Amino acid sequence: MTSKLTGEERETHLTPLLASGWSLLQERDAIQKKFIFTNFVEAFQWMTGVAIWAEKLNHHPEWSNVYKTVDVVLTTHDADGLSELDAKLAAKMDALAE
Amino acid sequence: MTSKLTGEERETHLTPLLASGWSLLQERDAIQKKFIFTNFVEAFQWMTGVAIWAEKLNHHPEWSNVYKTVDVVLTTHDADGLSELDAKLAAKMDALAE
Repeated sequence: MTSKLTGEERETHLTPLLASGWSLLQERDAIQKKFIFTNFVEAFQWMTGVAIWAEKLNHHPEWSNVYKTVDVVLTTHDADGLSELDAKLAAKMDALAE
Repeated sequence: MTSKLTGEERETHLTPLLASGWSLLQERDAIQKKFIFTNFVEAFQWMTGVAIWAEKLNHHPEWSNVYKTVDVVLTTHDADGLSELDAKLAAKMDALAE
């Protein structure tokens, strides 16, 4: 699960994410997305849901919060790039933000 | 409470914070501190306590979390610099991290 995505896997996992607002970073093999909520409480409520999932998957985001905005970067340090775990956490983040 | 700290107030409010690991940013009138915990759960538990206080004070941090580390920047946009609210939230963050 933590091995780096290659060729076809990459296509399968990344295509739906790129269609839902995620983008690839230039400088390293990682994806990013900006989530914007109504206010701080909504943003932090979402972060709390994500935190529980991150711990459950044992896979944690790099994220910054300023009031109602949360900037997320996902990558897998152990795999030196994107793995299935990033795709899984990204999809969960999208689902929790709906 | 949201007016910019001046002269003596600045001294009074910032001195204890600078002594407890906060530092001034070069590029704008703000303070920063890196909080390091044992793991993600401890880090996020602390963030949750801070989030409640931030909402209560209606004063929110700029913060980034990567696993067990939380980087915080505090400033008061309405005051165009540091205000008493930053000192108050910083002291609360320190207390919650003890």
